[in-house]
Amino acid sequence: MMSKKNVTKVILDETEIPRQWYNIVADMPNKPAPYYSPMTGKIATADDMAAIFPKEIIEQEMTSERFIDIPDEVREMYAQWRPSPLYRAKGLEKVLDTPARIYYKYEGTNATGSHKLNSSIPQAYYNKNAGIKRLSTETGAGQWGSALSLASNHFGMECTVYMVNVSYQQKPYRRSFMHTFGANVIASPSNLTNSGRSILEKDPECSGSLGIAISEAVEDAATHSDTNYALGSVLNHVCLHQTIIGQEAKKQLEMIDEYPDVVFACCGGGSNFAGAAFPFLMDRFKGKKVRAVAVEPTACPTLTKGVFAYDYGDTAKAAPIAKMYTLGHDFIPEGIHAGGLRYHGASSIVSQLYNDGIIEAQSCGQKEVFDAAVTFARAEGIVPAPESSHAIRAAIDEALKAKEEGREQVILFNLSGHGYFDFSAYDSYFGGKLENIHYDEQAVKASIANLPDIKG
Amino acid sequence: MMSKKNVTKVILDETEIPRQWYNIVADMPNKPAPYYSPMTGKIATADDMAAIFPKEIIEQEMTSERFIDIPDEVREMYAQWRPSPLYRAKGLEKVLDTPARIYYKYEGTNATGSHKLNSSIPQAYYNKNAGIKRLSTETGAGQWGSALSLASNHFGMECTVYMVNVSYQQKPYRRSFMHTFGANVIASPSNLTNSGRSILEKDPECSGSLGIAISEAVEDAATHSDTNYALGSVLNHVCLHQTIIGQEAKKQLEMIDEYPDVVFACCGGGSNFAGAAFPFLMDRFKGKKVRAVAVEPTACPTLTKGVFAYDYGDTAKAAPIAKMYTLGHDFIPEGIHAGGLRYHGASSIVSQLYNDGIIEAQSCGQKEVFDAAVTFARAEGIVPAPESSHAIRAAIDEALKAKEEGREQVILFNLSGHGYFDFSAYDSYFGGKLENIHYDEQAVKASIANLPDIKG
Repeated sequence: MMSKKNVTKVILDETEIPRQWYNIVADMPNKPAPYYSPMTGKIATADDMAAIFPKEIIEQEMTSERFIDIPDEVREMYAQWRPSPLYRAKGLEKVLDTPARIYYKYEGTNATGSHKLNSSIPQAYYNKNAGIKRLSTETGAGQWGSALSLASNHFGMECTVYMVNVSYQQKPYRRSFMHTFGANVIASPSNLTNSGRSILEKDPECSGSLGIAISEAVEDAATHSDTNYALGSVLNHVCLHQTIIGQEAKKQLEMIDEYPDVVFACCGGGSNFAGAAFPFLMDRFKGKKVRAVAVEPTACPTLTKGVFAYDYGDTAKAAPIAKMYTLGHDFIPEGIHAGGLRYHGASSIVSQLYNDGIIEAQSCGQKEVFDAAVTFARAEGIVPAPESSHAIRAAIDEALKAKEEGREQVILFNLSGHGYFDFSAYDSYFGGKLENIHYDEQAVKASIANLPDIKG
Repeated sequence: MMSKKNVTKVILDETEIPRQWYNIVADMPNKPAPYYSPMTGKIATADDMAAIFPKEIIEQEMTSERFIDIPDEVREMYAQWRPSPLYRAKGLEKVLDTPARIYYKYEGTNATGSHKLNSSIPQAYYNKNAGIKRLSTETGAGQWGSALSLASNHFGMECTVYMVNVSYQQKPYRRSFMHTFGANVIASPSNLTNSGRSILEKDPECSGSLGIAISEAVEDAATHSDTNYALGSVLNHVCLHQTIIGQEAKKQLEMIDEYPDVVFACCGGGSNFAGAAFPFLMDRFKGKKVRAVAVEPTACPTLTKGVFAYDYGDTAKAAPIAKMYTLGHDFIPEGIHAGGLRYHGASSIVSQLYNDGIIEAQSCGQKEVFDAAVTFARAEGIVPAPESSHAIRAAIDEALKAKEEGREQVILFNLSGHGYFDFSAYDSYFGGKLENIHYDEQAVKASIANLPDIKG
């Protein structure tokens, strides 16, 4: 066994890539509430979803089996970069002068630079098997769009990406990345869909939101028979695919005889948090003591300030209606740099766990998040994505608390992606132009007043 | 033993990071010619170099010991990302439909995204030990500047980077990267040095060159007693540090019972080529059959079109005078996107090996290099740096030749870095704006007429 005293990183052999995804639904005391169909107004059936998803994805969405086999073709693609490294944050511990031991799982070593590839590969695979020719999707920060572009290209499918307008402007190189893999990238809201046009009529300068981009992508898929839709977070099957992160991290920590007291991950739609935390919650359901904390931006504090209710997944009310923590489907958060965390809702599973007190949540302001990002970069030599930096902020605060209280603690966080495409944000930070951004309470109140009338 | 039939990547354990660098000088039939001092006009002594380098670096520059121990502190920092992965290019082989087996060593998984960190870490380490407070350097594409910024920050030193103006304009995010690690980044030629000012007087719009940027950085170091200079390529000690690449690659290939028939690496100053190829040449000196091919741009074809003679290392004639293949120190290549390959000369060691017929060289045009880059990206899921893509071009051509001739062949190339910071170049390519660029023969002729009068 390696010694935790001296380890810098823990690497697993390729043969140790998990062979199954972990489905937390099997172990939840209260199962996530079923989706409702926006067309029928009733509980959504597999048939309702067949217009935009392939059969195997729908099955994964609805199953409560504990473990789902990962297809060989998917594992083979995972092997390009997985298992991903687990690091001991020695540099950061030194800077903080903390008695805590801080570990991070790093999902940025693959071509698209984030955890998103973990789900885009199986989604593309199942769609290809179903005879689909083209995938449509939305992207916020561009990470999911990049991941789906690469996976679609690999399996010989076309890919259309509706990219939230503010990110489209902020991150030209993300667009170029997707072009390199042959994708068609469109600024959202666009003139290509009914839902896009209706937004632009009201606000031609609309900065867009994930809710709007999802509407456009779903409409595109629903109106073209050779096209399916692929979502980068929120849904159960996406959370499922991401669980390889936490499974690997557990093995890696085991190799150095460690177990975390607390796991931090940033939370937008929730799949990144799910991926890091769920395999540890599996132990918690068996009595193990471990905390899992979802970290979100104060500009879009879904879990910490939202309501737990049925809401539309998108602005145009075309996607399944889910019971979740939500700020209301009409709420458009300010254009913060963590574009991947600007979603009004959260995964039904994550929401149910939060409501049941099984997980915790906290929110951080943009300025303090970048303080943490730069501290981390200088200490660890990795430039983190703004989204991931929310988890860093929380981990640093926890380590400083441990120092104050003079106690040892084992902290794990998921570094879900690197910040190579986010230097315009870092430039703003160094230029003194970044502030903590509070969400607009009136706007949320108004948006929550428009929730659909479904009691689940 | 893993089977070469199925392997996607070969990962070594952290304990297998080499413990020594390999110094090829020990094995060369003809040793590299000594440097001359631009001050004295005589063979450069250790004292001559002491104004800009620490003692241990000077010793490494001059020694002919075969193996040099890597300090523990350096190995510990290497462990952050090393050993780097070796990949079987299955996707590329399939697209090319070739009987060749293609492998690549990938040096882009670290924070700065290229092999440059392999040398910036020991250079910063030795300077720190010598009590130096600040390092000055030049950077072309920005990769070396990023690597030295990170390493200087790690060891608590300041860092001043003179960045070739054309890259400074093309790659704003590389600047931001260096800022993140606290470096001071200056467009070169600048008004801060005598050498920069004298260039700007003649040409206020000068796009800069590595030769000019080196002059500025050397002048900065020579005129400040607390400051040393660090070079990212060309010199013997830099080539030495990079040999961990080839050493690891040999071990990795051995694990799957393979040995390359040919090794390709791009070549600017030569350290990347040295790092990949020298450990294999060690075997060649013992009778093993292996080819090593340096690949350079047609816009700056130092080995294939230059002369083998003593020349200045920089434009202002401040750096050591080296015997090398050179296009003349006055030659400023066109602003191609492979900014890291725009150097008028090449490592004395690489030059001597080429002159002795021990290694080969070839050149590629910019357009055909990007054709190869995009083919590789789509097949392998990694976006390569323009510099590295020269090696990809050559490897693809070799694999296609093997196909034509219907013979098996084992090809290894070094993927020295990723292209996350090069999307403006990819945009130009997709916009149909990239052409193959031939060097200006008249300019080279004129430049070569200005070589110093030293016969070595």
